Amino acid sequence: MKTLPNKIFNDPVHGFIEVPRGILLELIDSPEFQRLRRIRQLALTSLIYPGALHTRFHHALGAMHLMKEALMVLKGKGIEIQEDEFLGAQIAILLHDIGHGPFSHALENVFLPGWSHEAMSIKLMHQLNRKYEGALSLGIEIFENRYSRPFFHQLVSGQLDMDRMDYLMRDSYFTGVAEGTVGADRIIKTLMVVNDQLVVEQKGIYSVEKFIIARRLMYWQVYLHKAVIAAEYMLINILIRAKELFQQERLNWCNEPLSYFFQPTEHLENADDKDTLTYFLQLDDEDILYAIKQWQKDSDPILSRLCKGLLNRQLLKVRLQNEPVLSAEIEKAKENIPTSDAHYLCFTGSVSNLAYLGDNKEPIGIMSREGIIQNLAQASDSYNIEVLSSSVKKFFFCAPDRFWWNKTNN
Amino acid sequence: MKTLPNKIFNDPVHGFIEVPRGILLELIDSPEFQRLRRIRQLALTSLIYPGALHTRFHHALGAMHLMKEALMVLKGKGIEIQEDEFLGAQIAILLHDIGHGPFSHALENVFLPGWSHEAMSIKLMHQLNRKYEGALSLGIEIFENRYSRPFFHQLVSGQLDMDRMDYLMRDSYFTGVAEGTVGADRIIKTLMVVNDQLVVEQKGIYSVEKFIIARRLMYWQVYLHKAVIAAEYMLINILIRAKELFQQERLNWCNEPLSYFFQPTEHLENADDKDTLTYFLQLDDEDILYAIKQWQKDSDPILSRLCKGLLNRQLLKVRLQNEPVLSAEIEKAKENIPTSDAHYLCFTGSVSNLAYLGDNKEPIGIMSREGIIQNLAQASDSYNIEVLSSSVKKFFFCAPDRFWWNKTNN
Amino acid sequence: MKTLPNKIFNDPVHGFIEVPRGILLELIDSPEFQRLRRIRQLALTSLIYPGALHTRFHHALGAMHLMKEALMVLKGKGIEIQEDEFLGAQIAILLHDIGHGPFSHALENVFLPGWSHEAMSIKLMHQLNRKYEGALSLGIEIFENRYSRPFFHQLVSGQLDMDRMDYLMRDSYFTGVAEGTVGADRIIKTLMVVNDQLVVEQKGIYSVEKFIIARRLMYWQVYLHKAVIAAEYMLINILIRAKELFQQERLNWCNEPLSYFFQPTEHLENADDKDTLTYFLQLDDEDILYAIKQWQKDSDPILSRLCKGLLNRQLLKVRLQNEPVLSAEIEKAKENIPTSDAHYLCFTGSVSNLAYLGDNKEPIGIMSREGIIQNLAQASDSYNIEVLSSSVKKFFFCAPDRFWWNKTNN
Amino acid sequence: MKTLPNKIFNDPVHGFIEVPRGILLELIDSPEFQRLRRIRQLALTSLIYPGALHTRFHHALGAMHLMKEALMVLKGKGIEIQEDEFLGAQIAILLHDIGHGPFSHALENVFLPGWSHEAMSIKLMHQLNRKYEGALSLGIEIFENRYSRPFFHQLVSGQLDMDRMDYLMRDSYFTGVAEGTVGADRIIKTLMVVNDQLVVEQKGIYSVEKFIIARRLMYWQVYLHKAVIAAEYMLINILIRAKELFQQERLNWCNEPLSYFFQPTEHLENADDKDTLTYFLQLDDEDILYAIKQWQKDSDPILSRLCKGLLNRQLLKVRLQNEPVLSAEIEKAKENIPTSDAHYLCFTGSVSNLAYLGDNKEPIGIMSREGIIQNLAQASDSYNIEVLSSSVKKFFFCAPDRFWWNKTNN
Repeated sequence: MKTLPNKIFNDPVHGFIEVPRGILLELIDSPEFQRLRRIRQLALTSLIYPGALHTRFHHALGAMHLMKEALMVLKGKGIEIQEDEFLGAQIAILLHDIGHGPFSHALENVFLPGWSHEAMSIKLMHQLNRKYEGALSLGIEIFENRYSRPFFHQLVSGQLDMDRMDYLMRDSYFTGVAEGTVGADRIIKTLMVVNDQLVVEQKGIYSVEKFIIARRLMYWQVYLHKAVIAAEYMLINILIRAKELFQQERLNWCNEPLSYFFQPTEHLENADDKDTLTYFLQLDDEDILYAIKQWQKDSDPILSRLCKGLLNRQLLKVRLQNEPVLSAEIEKAKENIPTSDAHYLCFTGSVSNLAYLGDNKEPIGIMSREGIIQNLAQASDSYNIEVLSSSVKKFFFCAPDRFWWNKTNN
Repeated sequence: MKTLPNKIFNDPVHGFIEVPRGILLELIDSPEFQRLRRIRQLALTSLIYPGALHTRFHHALGAMHLMKEALMVLKGKGIEIQEDEFLGAQIAILLHDIGHGPFSHALENVFLPGWSHEAMSIKLMHQLNRKYEGALSLGIEIFENRYSRPFFHQLVSGQLDMDRMDYLMRDSYFTGVAEGTVGADRIIKTLMVVNDQLVVEQKGIYSVEKFIIARRLMYWQVYLHKAVIAAEYMLINILIRAKELFQQERLNWCNEPLSYFFQPTEHLENADDKDTLTYFLQLDDEDILYAIKQWQKDSDPILSRLCKGLLNRQLLKVRLQNEPVLSAEIEKAKENIPTSDAHYLCFTGSVSNLAYLGDNKEPIGIMSREGIIQNLAQASDSYNIEVLSSSVKKFFFCAPDRFWWNKTNN
Repeated sequence: MKTLPNKIFNDPVHGFIEVPRGILLELIDSPEFQRLRRIRQLALTSLIYPGALHTRFHHALGAMHLMKEALMVLKGKGIEIQEDEFLGAQIAILLHDIGHGPFSHALENVFLPGWSHEAMSIKLMHQLNRKYEGALSLGIEIFENRYSRPFFHQLVSGQLDMDRMDYLMRDSYFTGVAEGTVGADRIIKTLMVVNDQLVVEQKGIYSVEKFIIARRLMYWQVYLHKAVIAAEYMLINILIRAKELFQQERLNWCNEPLSYFFQPTEHLENADDKDTLTYFLQLDDEDILYAIKQWQKDSDPILSRLCKGLLNRQLLKVRLQNEPVLSAEIEKAKENIPTSDAHYLCFTGSVSNLAYLGDNKEPIGIMSREGIIQNLAQASDSYNIEVLSSSVKKFFFCAPDRFWWNKTNN
Repeated sequence: MKTLPNKIFNDPVHGFIEVPRGILLELIDSPEFQRLRRIRQLALTSLIYPGALHTRFHHALGAMHLMKEALMVLKGKGIEIQEDEFLGAQIAILLHDIGHGPFSHALENVFLPGWSHEAMSIKLMHQLNRKYEGALSLGIEIFENRYSRPFFHQLVSGQLDMDRMDYLMRDSYFTGVAEGTVGADRIIKTLMVVNDQLVVEQKGIYSVEKFIIARRLMYWQVYLHKAVIAAEYMLINILIRAKELFQQERLNWCNEPLSYFFQPTEHLENADDKDTLTYFLQLDDEDILYAIKQWQKDSDPILSRLCKGLLNRQLLKVRLQNEPVLSAEIEKAKENIPTSDAHYLCFTGSVSNLAYLGDNKEPIGIMSREGIIQNLAQASDSYNIEVLSSSVKKFFFCAPDRFWWNKTNN
C-alpha cells in the first residue's frame, strides 16, 4: 500500500516546509487555522513597507518548521526526545497564535477588553483538543508551561523561542529591512539542553548577541516606526468611533459579528464565552478592511475622514520624542480641527522596547566548552548586553497636518 | 528654502526605491493608484504559495524603478533622452496596470465582457491626464505606442520590458520559487538602442536566454500551477453563479458596485462608460473576499460550497494533460454531484504558455561587438530559443473529490 | 566521559558543514587532503572572475555535505541505508578529487601523459586505505562503481551527482555568475531510489531542467569563457615550453618535482608508479605560480613573455567561432611574431559542451506520482531536453594583439 | 569612430563593476596593481574559513566601485563635485592598499621594521604619478588628507569610509559569516556633505549602528578568531626564525628578494629606499607559500615543524582571556618542548578591538531633518554607541598540544 507523501509548503524564508500526514496536517487544514490566512502578521505595516502582507498562517508554519529543526539538532546532540514530545512541541507552536483576531495586537483591546490573544489561543486549543479527542493535550501542557521538561515551553515562548526566530526572519524578509536578518539556523545549531533547560553553547554567543540587536533594530525600524504607530492608532480610533456611533445608532454600516463586539462593554463582559468565541472566529482582516471601505461614506466626519485617510494613505503626522508630550500642545493642535471630538485626531501615548529581558528576569544561559553555565551578560565580552536589557521608552504625538481634514474629504 | 527630500519606498526586491517630489509622487499618492494596494498581483496564488500576497501597487513601483535604471544605463551609453521622455516613460510604466480590477486577470471577463484591463488603464490614464492638466500626455503616447521613438514603448511593453523584469523577480521573491529568479540588472546593463529600437548587446545573450527560460518555468510552476488554476476557476464560477442568483433575486448578499456589474450583460454593454469606470474603481480584492465570506452562508448549495472551498482551502481536484479532456469523463464526474448545476464543479479548459514570441513575430535584437543586429534565435548558439518560441498547450480537468461536497458543508 | 563535539566548517555556500569525529575527519586532516587547499577549483579563472579562488578542498567538503543531505532525504523516504553505506558514500565523494594536480584539468596532460586525475584519485585512495587499514574499502567500491547498489555511485558520479551540484553552486557563488545558481536542496528533496537506481520525483522535473540549463550557461559563461581558454592555453604552453627548455638544459629555474615531470615522456612512462605518485603529491598550484614568477626572467623570449602575460594579465586575444579555423589565418598571424616558435602564441583548438548526456546514453529517470519511471526527455513537456542533449562544439583561435610582444616585455 | 566600451569586472559582492577606459583602467592594468591579485585580503584566515581567499585586488576594485556610488549619491543631492575630484577620489581609494606586502599586515613588521603599508602605498603612488605624468596628483592629495575638501579623504579613510564598507561586505561574503553583512548601499544613500564634512542623515542612524556592530562581530568572529591568531603568529615566527637561520647561514632555501629583507635590520634601515621598493614589489603571497613548502624540509626542527604545521593545518593551541597570561604558565609550557628555542612555540600577546573611535576622537556626524548636526552617540537612542566606543582588549596564550611536535614531523 502506498502511503501519501508529505505535504510541502513553499516558503521563501525557510525553503520547503514538509508536513507529514497526520494530526499536524489536519490542524493546518482546519477552518480555525486556515482563518489565519486572513490575518496579517504586521497589521497595517504594509502602508509603510509595501511587502509586509504576510500572514499569521505563514508565520505559524515557519515557526513549526524551526521547532522541528531545533528538536532534530537537540536529538543529534544526544538529548532524549520522545515521539509524543516531538509532536507536542510542534502542535504548541503551530497553534500559538491561533487566538489572534483581526489586525493582531492592534484591535485586541477594542474587541476584547480584559481578554488577550493568548487567553483566546488557549480557549481555542482546548476546543480543538475536544474535536481531536485529546490529541493536543501534551501540546497544550507545553504551551501553558505545565509540562515537566521546561525547555519545550522555552522553545515555544522564551528569550530565544522559535516564534521570535521566525517572525524576525519573516518580517525582515517581507519588509526588506535587511538589518533585521537573523541567522536562525546558526543559533539553532548551538542550542543545547542542560537539566531540561534550554541553553546556548559558547560558540553561539555572537549570534545570540546579533539576534538581540536585530530584534531591537526591527522594533525601531518597523514595529515602532512612527508612521506605523500613526496608522495603528488611526485604526484603533476608527473602531472606537464606530462603536460609539453604533451604540448611538448612527453608524451607516455594520455586520453581525461586529455588532456583537460593539455592544456596551458590560454586556460583553457578561456574555457567554462560547458566543464570544464563535463571533470572534468569524472576524478577520477582511471584515475590518471592508468595514473601512463602507465607513468612509459615513456621515460622521471623524469616522469618514479616518477611513479615507487609511484607504488612501493620508496618515496623521506623528512625532517620537524622549519626553512626555505636554497637554498644552495637544490642546493647541485640537484647535485647528472643526469638531468637538478632536481627541480622535490629536493624541499622545508611549511605546517602549526591551530587546532582552536581562539576566535578572529571564537570563539566556551560555554553556562554556567545559559545560559551565553562565548568564549571557556575564559571558559576553562587553557591556552591550547590559545596555540591551535596559528598556527604551518613547512618547508619540499624533495630529493631522494643516491640509489633512480637506484632503481626506475628497 | 529647503527642498523636500525624495520619498523612499522600501522594497525587498530592489532595495530603496526613490521617488522625487513632483508628478510621479502625486500619481502614487492618488486614490486611483493607492487602490492598487488592494489588488494582489497573483490573485489567489497565495493559497498555493502562501507568501504571494504582493500587490499591483508594489509591482508598479518596482517596474518604474527598473525603468529609471534602464534609462540611466542608456543615457550612460550616449543615447539622448530628454527630461520629458525620461519622465514620460516612468509615467507610462507606473500606470500600466492602473486599470486592473479585483483579482487582476481572473475576473476581467466576468465583470467586463468586451473590455480588457489595458483598455481600462487607458481610460483611467486619460481621466488622470485631465486632472493633471496634460502632464501625462507623453506618457500616454508612449503607453499607446504612438510616440516617435519606439524603444520607450518597448521598455513598457515588449519582449524584454520592465514590466516582465519586475514581475518575474517579484513573483519569484514572494512565492519563493527560486527557479524564476532573474538577473534584471544584468540584462538592463546590456540594453542598447539602435535606430530607436531596443536591442541587447552580444554579452547579454545568456542572460536573455536565462530570462526566457525563467519565465517559462514560472509559468508552469506558478502561473499555471494546477491548484492555482483550480482556485481561479472556482473564483470565476463563484462570481458567475452569484450573478445568476442575483438576476434571479436569490442572492443572500450584494453591495452596490457588485450589483452594477451583475446586471444583464446587454444592460452593461449599453451603460455609460463613466458609470462603469466609477463603479469599477470602487471594487478591489477586499470586496470579493468579503462577498465570499457572506456567500458561504447563501442557501444555494453550489455557491456556498464553492465559497467555503476557497475560504478553507478545500480546492477542486485538477489534472493537467496534453490531450483534450473527453466529455464522457466530465459527464461521469457530474453524476456524483447531487445538483443539476454540476457544470460549476466539473469542467475542462485549456492553458498555454509561450515563453518567447519568436523571431518571426517580435524578435529580440542582439547587437554584436561590431554593431551588427541579429535576431535572438540566429545569434544564439543552440536550438534552445527556437524551442522556447513554440507554444505549449495543456488541458485541465477539474472536479471535486469524493468527499468534497460534504467537507465543504461543515 | 565527554565526547568531543563535531567539527564545524563555515561554508558560505551551504552554511555550517558538520563533520563528526572519526574517519571522515581524519581523512580531512591528512596531508593528502589538506594539499587540496592549494589547488584551485577553477585554475586561472580568477584572471577573469576575480572571486574564483576557491579550492578543491572546499568543493570536496561541500560535496560531502550534500551527500549527507541526500542520504538523509532518501532514508526519510524509507530507503534502507546501512551505517557503513552512509559512511562509504561520504568517503567516496570526499576523496573523488584527491588525485587532482596543480591547476586541476589544465596540466593533466602535460604532467601525466596517459594518466588521468581519476586514475590518480584511485591510486591515492588505495594508498590511504592501506594507511587506515581497510576503512575506505566500501567507499572505494562505490567510487569505482563496483558496489551492488548503483545509486550510491550515481550520487558520486552521474547526471545528478553531488559533485556537480556542489561545483555549480560553488562556482556560481565565487564567480558571481548568478545564472549558474542551482537549487540543490530542491533537487535533493525530490530524489528517490527505485530498484537501487537513482530517480527524481515528477515534481522535481523543472528543477532538474533548470539544473541542466544552469550547467550549460556556466559552460559558456565561465568554464569555456574565451579569456579563460586563452589563459589556460598560455599556462599549458608555458609548461610545454619550460619542459622543452629543461630537456635542452636552457631553463633558468626548476625544482625537484618539476624536474621529475620534465623528463622525456618515455622515461616517465617507464617510471615507478610510486615515484610518480610521491612527486605528484609534492606539487600544487603554488609551485607553478612560483615557477612562473621565476620563468618570467628566463632568457627565452617565448617563455618569459608568456609568464609575464599571465602575471600581469596581458592575455592572448582569442576568438570563438562555429567553423574550424583556417590554417592560413594562423600562418598569417605567426608572421607578426619575431620568433621561429610562434606556434606557442598562435594556435587553434576546439571546445565542446554537452549539458545532458541524453536519454540514450545515461538517462535521468523521472518517477510519476503513480510510480512509473520515464526518461527525462519523455517526461518533460517540451523539446528543450532533447536540445540540451545535443553537443555544441566551438573552435577557438588565439594570437597576440599587435602590441603584446612589447607590452609583455616591460 | 567607435569608442571602446567600459571594462566590466564581475563581482559577486557588488555585481558588475564598470570601469571606463582611461587612467583608472591603466592603473588597474599596471603590474603594480595586478600584483595585488597575489596578496590575499585576509592572509591565512582561509585555514579557518576556507572561502576567505579573496585578494587586495578584488577589494580595491570594490572600494572604488562604492566610491563611485557614494559620489553619485552626493551629486544627486546637490553637492558640487568636479570631474577631477570625482576621478581623484576614485584613484585615491583604488590605490589605498597598493603598498601591502605578502600576507598584508602580518608580515609588515618582519620585513619592514619602521615602515608601514601606508607609507609604502604613498611611495608607490608617487612613483606611479611620475609614470603617469601627474595624473594622480589630486588623488594623492586626497589620500594624504591635504585636499581642501575633507569629505573626499573621509570617504577614503574615516569612520564610514568605502574601504571599510567594502572589506566588511567582502570578508563577510567570502568567509560566510553572515553576522558581518553590511547594507553598504543603505548607508551610502544616507550620506551627505555639510561644510565639506561627511555626515549621515538621521534616517541612516540604525544602519550606521548596525554597521559598527557588524564590524565588532567580524573582529571577534574573524579578524581576531583565536585560530587565526595562532596561524598568523606561526607565520610571523616562521619568518623570524628563517631570518635568524639565514643570518647564521643555516637556512636551506632562500630567494633574492627574501635575502634582501633577511639582512640585519641595521643594514636594511640604511638601505636605499629605491632598492627596498624594488625588492618589495617582487614579493607576494606566492613567495612566502613557496618558501614554507621548502622550509618544511629544513634541518632546523623549529622551522620545519612550524612550516609543516601551517601546510597541514596542525595549528598551535590558543586561548583567549581577559587577564594577562602569567609568565609561569609560559615557562611551564616550554618545558614540554625539546628545544632551547621554545619561545617560537609558546608565547603570549594581546589583541584589541575598537569598533567606533567615539564621539571624542572622530565623531560620526548625524544630520537631523532640520539640518542640525549631532554626534552619533548623542543622536542615538541608547547607550549602545558609548559601549561600542570603549576598547576591548584580550590576551592570548599559544602553545603546542601534547602531540604537536611529533605530528608535525610526519
